[in-house]
Amino acid sequence: MGPGEGASNQVCLLAIELGKLVAQNGWLLLTGGRDIGVMKAALKGAKQANGTTIGVLPGHNRDQCSPYVDIPIVTGIGEARNVINILTSDVIVACGMGAGTASEISFAIKKKKPLILLKPGAHATAFFSELDPTIQIVDTPAQVISALKKIPNRNPTW
Amino acid sequence: MGPGEGASNQVCLLAIELGKLVAQNGWLLLTGGRDIGVMKAALKGAKQANGTTIGVLPGHNRDQCSPYVDIPIVTGIGEARNVINILTSDVIVACGMGAGTASEISFAIKKKKPLILLKPGAHATAFFSELDPTIQIVDTPAQVISALKKIPNRNPTW
Amino acid sequence: MGPGEGASNQVCLLAIELGKLVAQNGWLLLTGGRDIGVMKAALKGAKQANGTTIGVLPGHNRDQCSPYVDIPIVTGIGEARNVINILTSDVIVACGMGAGTASEISFAIKKKKPLILLKPGAHATAFFSELDPTIQIVDTPAQVISALKKIPNRNPTW
Amino acid sequence: MGPGEGASNQVCLLAIELGKLVAQNGWLLLTGGRDIGVMKAALKGAKQANGTTIGVLPGHNRDQCSPYVDIPIVTGIGEARNVINILTSDVIVACGMGAGTASEISFAIKKKKPLILLKPGAHATAFFSELDPTIQIVDTPAQVISALKKIPNRNPTW
Repeated sequence: MGPGEGASNQVCLLAIELGKLVAQNGWLLLTGGRDIGVMKAALKGAKQANGTTIGVLPGHNRDQCSPYVDIPIVTGIGEARNVINILTSDVIVACGMGAGTASEISFAIKKKKPLILLKPGAHATAFFSELDPTIQIVDTPAQVISALKKIPNRNPTW
Repeated sequence: MGPGEGASNQVCLLAIELGKLVAQNGWLLLTGGRDIGVMKAALKGAKQANGTTIGVLPGHNRDQCSPYVDIPIVTGIGEARNVINILTSDVIVACGMGAGTASEISFAIKKKKPLILLKPGAHATAFFSELDPTIQIVDTPAQVISALKKIPNRNPTW
Repeated sequence: MGPGEGASNQVCLLAIELGKLVAQNGWLLLTGGRDIGVMKAALKGAKQANGTTIGVLPGHNRDQCSPYVDIPIVTGIGEARNVINILTSDVIVACGMGAGTASEISFAIKKKKPLILLKPGAHATAFFSELDPTIQIVDTPAQVISALKKIPNRNPTW
Repeated sequence: MGPGEGASNQVCLLAIELGKLVAQNGWLLLTGGRDIGVMKAALKGAKQANGTTIGVLPGHNRDQCSPYVDIPIVTGIGEARNVINILTSDVIVACGMGAGTASEISFAIKKKKPLILLKPGAHATAFFSELDPTIQIVDTPAQVISALKKIPNRNPTW
């Protein structure tokens, strides 16, 4: 999870790297599906590594869908689809920050989902760690993968 | 799309056959994802033919998910997820009837999605054909596939 | 509940009359809130009789809201808001027919809500009565009110 | 907006006072509608001052609804209803903090809604002010009301 319009180049480079590593580990990558910012970058990285990608779109059709999405889910429920992103994911990784990303981190905490923040700012670290001391803070995509591997698989069927 | 709890054996046999044929044609199968009725039957048929399946679940977790679902989408929005089923699908096929199925057929008409009814009852045929004269009525899963092949692909990217 | 764009004059006149009677009985009127068709007509009737009205809007803002709505609920979830219309209402009355209305009738049956169809067509009567034999079919707004008064109040607090 | 289960007594006392002042100014009070925490406290305060209250419930029925709610909206979409809280409100006031509240503050920023935080913690202040420098931070319910009165009415019809 990460910002669309407001994503910096630096954050997008991290997202590309993260998407690649997720795919190389054989995991599905799910994002908000739009062709912009961290969503696009992570999807692109995953496809460069021949991964499989899911995009959970806010709109009523595929107009905003990234071509890096293999399986577009067209929700038609706008920003409320952020909850679907969280409920559907086994683990949430936030990369970069914005209001939409903050809502997804909040829902992940609310739903007690494993949550990793990749290189968050100092204020985000302080605020979200106070809300939930169990969230993990890491500095690099490689550290995200190490943290992911230590999370017990709670959905063995899938 | 088709009923869960109220599905007859006959309808489920049609759904298994339909799921198989969908998979054999290389298409993704999407259902409401629950392990019951037409959802389960169509998913089972698709997996028997090595297809790929998506289940768009109403609940907040995967408790009701069929083991025949490859990609569970956990919406947490209850019956409102029926709209997502329709918006996400390129084509909708209804097999059997119930209140949930009727809502999905209605949304498909509302959203002007290609819609095929497989062996509907006389009253369903009369009512929905009146609402939308373009919907197609067929008698067998093989006829569904023939009808599907004549629908122009409006999403060439996917 | 009733059609927006496709509502006939005759159906809108019934909706105005129904809205008036609902208000005169001291009940809240809830519709889909848009300024068109049966939604607008029923809201207008209720306001002419000094009733209180709720509009559950599909969009992300109030742009489509009827001025006859006292309390606009802005859902931002598109057609999925039809489920909210049904869950929120104590009783559902359908006036006129269209794909959206058919979805609402279907959800009302699914959720076992008291449901009255005002002057439905022959095919709608046959189809929905087959889905649920307990639904009531009436010919005039006055008969709707008589039917409503016989429904036990299951939410005494409100 | 404010926490349910995790609300402190101090925060609930602020919410009661705020609810009272909102009602005394003739404004409608909208909360998440559950009979707990800040939701319950604000609703109670508003009813003590003869205000009118709306509760936007997450569940499929009114089981969790506070008796201080005049108009319960039953969404059935779970936590996704937080978006409806934000889109429906002219102004958002957050009182207390929790994961759900953080999601609502985030959505309010995303949707550019006028937003006031009542006595937030230092980390919340730093984080959300960084996300959106225009949000207002105040210390007392009376200051909330003063701030609310300075916000231009963008929905003159309602």
